Amino acid sequence: MDILALINKKKYGQELTREEINFIVEGYTSGSIPDYQMSAFLMAIYFQTMSISEILILTEAMINSGEIYDLSSISGFKVDKHSSGGVGDKVSLIYAPLVASFGLKVAKMSGRGLGQTGGTIDKLESIPGFKVEIPFSEFVKIINQTNLSIMSQTDNIVPADKKIYALRDVTATVDSLPLVAASVMCKKIATGSDGIILDVKCGNGAFMKTISEARKLAQIMVELGIKFNKKIAAEITNMSEPLGRTIGNAIEIYEVLQALKGTGPADLNYIVCESAALSLCQAGLFSDLATAVTACQAKMQTEEPLNYFRAFIKAQGGDLNFIDNDLPLKDILKVKNIIEIKATQAGYMEIIDTTELGLLAVRLGAGRATKNEEIDYHAGIYLNKKTGENVAVGDVVMTLYTNRYITEPVYKWAERTFKIVTVKPREQKLIYEIIQ
Amino acid sequence: MDILALINKKKYGQELTREEINFIVEGYTSGSIPDYQMSAFLMAIYFQTMSISEILILTEAMINSGEIYDLSSISGFKVDKHSSGGVGDKVSLIYAPLVASFGLKVAKMSGRGLGQTGGTIDKLESIPGFKVEIPFSEFVKIINQTNLSIMSQTDNIVPADKKIYALRDVTATVDSLPLVAASVMCKKIATGSDGIILDVKCGNGAFMKTISEARKLAQIMVELGIKFNKKIAAEITNMSEPLGRTIGNAIEIYEVLQALKGTGPADLNYIVCESAALSLCQAGLFSDLATAVTACQAKMQTEEPLNYFRAFIKAQGGDLNFIDNDLPLKDILKVKNIIEIKATQAGYMEIIDTTELGLLAVRLGAGRATKNEEIDYHAGIYLNKKTGENVAVGDVVMTLYTNRYITEPVYKWAERTFKIVTVKPREQKLIYEIIQ
Repeated sequence: MDILALINKKKYGQELTREEINFIVEGYTSGSIPDYQMSAFLMAIYFQTMSISEILILTEAMINSGEIYDLSSISGFKVDKHSSGGVGDKVSLIYAPLVASFGLKVAKMSGRGLGQTGGTIDKLESIPGFKVEIPFSEFVKIINQTNLSIMSQTDNIVPADKKIYALRDVTATVDSLPLVAASVMCKKIATGSDGIILDVKCGNGAFMKTISEARKLAQIMVELGIKFNKKIAAEITNMSEPLGRTIGNAIEIYEVLQALKGTGPADLNYIVCESAALSLCQAGLFSDLATAVTACQAKMQTEEPLNYFRAFIKAQGGDLNFIDNDLPLKDILKVKNIIEIKATQAGYMEIIDTTELGLLAVRLGAGRATKNEEIDYHAGIYLNKKTGENVAVGDVVMTLYTNRYITEPVYKWAERTFKIVTVKPREQKLIYEIIQ
Repeated sequence: MDILALINKKKYGQELTREEINFIVEGYTSGSIPDYQMSAFLMAIYFQTMSISEILILTEAMINSGEIYDLSSISGFKVDKHSSGGVGDKVSLIYAPLVASFGLKVAKMSGRGLGQTGGTIDKLESIPGFKVEIPFSEFVKIINQTNLSIMSQTDNIVPADKKIYALRDVTATVDSLPLVAASVMCKKIATGSDGIILDVKCGNGAFMKTISEARKLAQIMVELGIKFNKKIAAEITNMSEPLGRTIGNAIEIYEVLQALKGTGPADLNYIVCESAALSLCQAGLFSDLATAVTACQAKMQTEEPLNYFRAFIKAQGGDLNFIDNDLPLKDILKVKNIIEIKATQAGYMEIIDTTELGLLAVRLGAGRATKNEEIDYHAGIYLNKKTGENVAVGDVVMTLYTNRYITEPVYKWAERTFKIVTVKPREQKLIYEIIQ
């Protein structure tokens, strides 16, 4: 087979066969197809897209490039949750102990953050002693003990995806629906769960800017999940402002604990319960989503989810004392500079650029602008005011925590992410649609 | 500037600025932008195309990447002719001595062939002793002596084009109109002629399959030429069968001599005279194309063009004796195998796949399937019958000349390039349009 002919075939909008897609994925992974041909091929996919059948084959080819995890020694219904990446998105860290408290088994592999998007693994690593790189056998053992474990994705699953993603990242071919769908789903399938919840974020803080785009992606992924015999549901959720009030790592763990203690923000609690309820229905514990949501809300009022969370953190070596102490944030976060951004006029808060808020957090040290950058786990942003809340002149609307030396332009940056408006912004839906 | 942002900009269909295009061309030429990013960018151009202003800037950037030739020491009107690549296309080799015989100066740099398309330089190299790599000073000297010289394109002009073309060749991004236009025109501008004739081929033997595609390309190139203050005209010509009866190298030089002796095929003579007439009008020797064509036809009946050709070949060290001797082809071409393909039914000849005929010639040794392959200058194809000619059972329709050991499938290949039909095929136009 000739890679040039296959690039042309895709370029002219023709459908590739199984043999052809396998040839490309195997050739690229083994190195016989060079980067410059693969990147031309990926750009052709961006423009010509792929049929569901092609995406399915691509997903299978990426799965087959590495190990497939066998979770059969874990009894019960195994669940996994994926978020397409948001700002201040700590949902999985609350969802996991909540469904665990219902007896579901959470076997979650997670990635690190890049750009405005935080990573669950980075957030967990802000907990002193917490180990994200554990052997698979320990992962299974911890799940059998505590009903949940979250580990860093290992190199031996989907190596083809890893290599292709790294290339997409530097060739402007990340935002291709079939490539996103195959990349997400190959990991979810290879890690062997029975039920999958996908949170496809949409809005000014997400990769998908419109609902119709997000819906297309969600539909493709759900269709793939069904073809792999998984229980699968996708939520299209609103990322036009951060979830909760915190953006960062330790600061988000702080908010996770608040939520598990019943004092977290309402938006976060709402999405957590909806997501958990979907998993409970997949597992067959409830037949009706509304009933399952009510059960989740009730459970969040008990100490059970918090205890599951504590047990899981402890099992992976983490020590929550630094944050689980009812001290105010300023005493918890070890940073040199705490900067308060204040309102210069009265009205209602409106966050207008969530991506920029995420990038501001990166600038403060809470994330990575480029791979391999070190994260300052205590840097971050606290939103004292969220969209729709009353603001008086001089009110603190957000607080920046950083160890870096921050100058005027950064305050201006913060000020560009919101405005104070005179008419109260309309309340927006948090979950637009559920596709399953 | 950030290459990733620029790939995205083109990907999203936005227009790039001069600074951005310069950044990319300079970055790629110097090596700071890697192949895999450039190939993604080129594929994005394939899909989003470029505005005339972008193509102009790209052309300029490629010209500025190397030397620009100064032909000012050559008096008179300097002309150059480019063909987009055909099968059996020896027009330039007859056009050049014809316009030279009118006093025009032909300063032509030419390339080698690849795939089904032959290269003028390869054809000239089939003449014993002929030097295609000569210093620029000698090129100028020969033109001042003989009114014409054809040399191999040197490495010091348009190095950016050379590097980008090599990448396009292996990433399925050759057939992009803006990239073709910029690549052709940067060479034509950098080599400094006053007048340019472009032969944009169209049909089953050309890159451009339809007239509308060919017209678009021609229009872009003419517009570029005008912007660079050149006299320029583009002919859109029919490449649905080879020009003349020969495909190869020495065999095409043989036909060039026939044409210059007044015994060449009519189709070749027609296109040669039309092309030459366009140049004569550009030079101001004629104000009217029809009159110029008549003058060219008359000149072809004289020995003048032949004498200019002989003087030029001699000036570059070539010895025409091997072919300029009125011997039959079988005695001129030093090949081990001469294979006659015969008609198995009676009717009219119709050539149906000119590209395959070109590739068959490559298979016989007359061209290169991949770069750096050696050419067998005496290999080639003679078309005993051309489209529309009467064929009786047993008539030889084409003759294959090769030093290679050829088996059954190759005869079958030859047989797939034509059919014998019962209704005489309609005569086709040779020149569809002239754009200037």
